[in-house]
Amino acid sequence: MSKHTTSIQVRYAETDQMGVAYHANYLVWMEVARTDLCRSLGLQYREMEAEDGILLAVTEAHCRYLSAARYDDDVAITATLGEANRRFISFEYEMKCAERRVASGVTKHIFLNREFRPVRLPDKFAGLFGVV
Amino acid sequence: MSKHTTSIQVRYAETDQMGVAYHANYLVWMEVARTDLCRSLGLQYREMEAEDGILLAVTEAHCRYLSAARYDDDVAITATLGEANRRFISFEYEMKCAERRVASGVTKHIFLNREFRPVRLPDKFAGLFGVV
Amino acid sequence: MSKHTTSIQVRYAETDQMGVAYHANYLVWMEVARTDLCRSLGLQYREMEAEDGILLAVTEAHCRYLSAARYDDDVAITATLGEANRRFISFEYEMKCAERRVASGVTKHIFLNREFRPVRLPDKFAGLFGVV
Amino acid sequence: MSKHTTSIQVRYAETDQMGVAYHANYLVWMEVARTDLCRSLGLQYREMEAEDGILLAVTEAHCRYLSAARYDDDVAITATLGEANRRFISFEYEMKCAERRVASGVTKHIFLNREFRPVRLPDKFAGLFGVV
Repeated sequence: MSKHTTSIQVRYAETDQMGVAYHANYLVWMEVARTDLCRSLGLQYREMEAEDGILLAVTEAHCRYLSAARYDDDVAITATLGEANRRFISFEYEMKCAERRVASGVTKHIFLNREFRPVRLPDKFAGLFGVV
Repeated sequence: MSKHTTSIQVRYAETDQMGVAYHANYLVWMEVARTDLCRSLGLQYREMEAEDGILLAVTEAHCRYLSAARYDDDVAITATLGEANRRFISFEYEMKCAERRVASGVTKHIFLNREFRPVRLPDKFAGLFGVV
Repeated sequence: MSKHTTSIQVRYAETDQMGVAYHANYLVWMEVARTDLCRSLGLQYREMEAEDGILLAVTEAHCRYLSAARYDDDVAITATLGEANRRFISFEYEMKCAERRVASGVTKHIFLNREFRPVRLPDKFAGLFGVV
Repeated sequence: MSKHTTSIQVRYAETDQMGVAYHANYLVWMEVARTDLCRSLGLQYREMEAEDGILLAVTEAHCRYLSAARYDDDVAITATLGEANRRFISFEYEMKCAERRVASGVTKHIFLNREFRPVRLPDKFAGLFGVV
């Protein structure tokens, strides 16, 4: 099972005047966790984009906010590989501050080439995602 | 029907190295459109928070990305009031660049007091949202 | 004299838990004002970058914070063209909420090609900046 | 000498369409490094703000950009305590990717109470900054 946990610390810049982390930042944290999960599977997203010209475009994002993350809190984001095939991939996320659940989310993606046309994921990457 | 269209212009800061607006920014644009819809209904969100101590906390956000918004593009965000009662409110969003659909989304909210406890929306605001 | 005033409204996303606009956002507002000043001079920055491959890279940024900008405040940013030659350009900024001074700033820039090498500004753009 | 080095990894969200980290984010990284420097001196900024009601407000920020930081780069930010007295404090920053210099910067701050009035730094914090 492909799963990886990344930890971030809430930045002052990420808070809002409600005194908590602004909700759009959770999507950024998902991105950080997704990149780290890919790396743990042997895929450097940076290289996939720079060398192979394959972009992982977000087609859908969903987040359910359960409790507040506050300045300086350590948030653990566990990213899990969801469905994956040659054209589509999804990730699921669970966020916690210590034992307190903070949020859960999902992102869905397609693979694009540099001209923003959908492409099939090449063999060299497909195996890393467990795709045949 | 409670609906309002707000226009934003994509900032350079909002782009990413894919050459398009980074996906988390769409949630920020929804916030801008939501504030303007509230204002059009006679509700100054700033005052509701500052004077009445009522916070409109996001409990859920969803966005479906249909096509790219790029630097300097004018994006029209139409926000519509969804379900609303004394404890809960939702908004729906449609984003377009000229006639091209860019994204659609939903946010769900509850009302909190300054101690982050759920509260019932007072009469003075309830009527503005069409809540009895 | 090349000067242009742009108005932005402080977004909730731009506030921090101090209850004011987070200071790094002022640099984003300078970017918005700079783009509008260029547009008022006849230069579409988007096209300069996309069609001519000329990037306006920031080499230095400075901001002096005089009073707080708060959520929903209208901030008027007046951008003025400073020094300019074929390789270098600077801009100055004054920000106000109504009559209250909020901040002043400076950005300095060089022109780069897509390979991030310094280039001389072509004639078609130089004239717009009053450069001979 | 009060100095501390913090490392951040450039997020996709922090890049712009030039393919490098957007310049305003460097101020955010300075904030992260400043918080860590304070922590290394024994000062939890979070507690100073929450329990003592003392805010460290930015009055001036300056950044000189020397070379690009790119997506996924590890940037080491060394923060050094500059001038400090009971009313004012400054920090200096050096940023590097491996041996390559990326940027240098300065921020200046005053201490404010919750009503945004300047205050003198209490004894319990002054010593940590080497202020008599």
